[in-house]
Amino acid sequence: MSSLPKLQIALDNQTLSDAIKSINAVGEEIDVVEAGTILCLQEGMEVVRCLRALYPEKIILADTKCADAGGTVAKNCADAGADWMTVICSATIPTMKAALAEVDDLQVELYGDWTFDHARQWKEAGLSQVVYHQSRDALNSGKSWGDEDLDKLKKLSEMGFKVSVTGGLNPDTVKLFKGIDIYCFIAGRGIRDAEDPIAAAREFKAEIAKYWGK
Amino acid sequence: MSSLPKLQIALDNQTLSDAIKSINAVGEEIDVVEAGTILCLQEGMEVVRCLRALYPEKIILADTKCADAGGTVAKNCADAGADWMTVICSATIPTMKAALAEVDDLQVELYGDWTFDHARQWKEAGLSQVVYHQSRDALNSGKSWGDEDLDKLKKLSEMGFKVSVTGGLNPDTVKLFKGIDIYCFIAGRGIRDAEDPIAAAREFKAEIAKYWGK
Repeated sequence: MSSLPKLQIALDNQTLSDAIKSINAVGEEIDVVEAGTILCLQEGMEVVRCLRALYPEKIILADTKCADAGGTVAKNCADAGADWMTVICSATIPTMKAALAEVDDLQVELYGDWTFDHARQWKEAGLSQVVYHQSRDALNSGKSWGDEDLDKLKKLSEMGFKVSVTGGLNPDTVKLFKGIDIYCFIAGRGIRDAEDPIAAAREFKAEIAKYWGK
Repeated sequence: MSSLPKLQIALDNQTLSDAIKSINAVGEEIDVVEAGTILCLQEGMEVVRCLRALYPEKIILADTKCADAGGTVAKNCADAGADWMTVICSATIPTMKAALAEVDDLQVELYGDWTFDHARQWKEAGLSQVVYHQSRDALNSGKSWGDEDLDKLKKLSEMGFKVSVTGGLNPDTVKLFKGIDIYCFIAGRGIRDAEDPIAAAREFKAEIAKYWGK
């Protein structure tokens, strides 16, 4: 067991077979295997069942970005074999609590105008993980990681959250977060679309060890 | 063509076959057929393909509650045969715009602490439909429709949005919205779990005609 930040791969593939191809190329290097939202919506929970079949021991995350019916969605994810699930930050507290009762852990996905008041409510409700995003569409329109993002990450960490980050990450961007207690680095195309995915994953882990190791 | 509020059924079934059973019992009475979030996550876009196959002429809605990668998710829904898709209110404007470019229309799902400032941004971005919710989990914890909700609906309608409502609706609750220009009444279990679903749908439509007809 290590207290280093974990490496999470987001399988935002379009088909189950393509996701299996992606993860099969790199799975051994990965701590958390995420069935991406796009993939879950395309293929349903069969994706989670297949990832669980491939990796009985790894953490499997269903990125449902659940906004409602938290209990039902979370039970479905758990039944399919997921350890963790995501909820959207604009879900109500009852939705989050209902979901948390059904899975081992939840990640709250931070999109839009969430506030630290909301974050305090999540903490009170027993939520422990948040995911700080640069939205893919925001990145496409030119946004990137800045001091404002890093300050928010620090504040969330100081509140006691396990803070994960995602959005346009590659091995070169890992060092941007130096000094912040990151729980998971979440990479999608930064690993999947690399010429050598396993080398990319190892570069991520080398950078993580360099800045977070003893 | 009628300017009466439409009747939308939310197929929040757990399996494709159960959804087909539900819609087959009542489809002819329905204006908008919604593949619910739970169902999309369970079975993937095959659900939308099957609903399109069953109802070539009806409006098919994929309730993805999309939060990111709007262009990809919307294109996938459109490719599967959906006319409309939902986005969550906390999605960024670029996500909403990217989605809107791929489907005939979007419904913005109002959850959590959205504001009228956000609503103005959605309007400017070309969004025309909003869905006002009582979250299932909020209903389970005792909330219902009140004056505060109705005032917000009126204000959204005055801003020029096509406003739809959902959450714990049955034929008896339709009259609560009298005098407000409702676009779709969205019912799930209020129709699906009725002893006689087709009678329930007809009761909804009779109430709609009573309060919104000439």
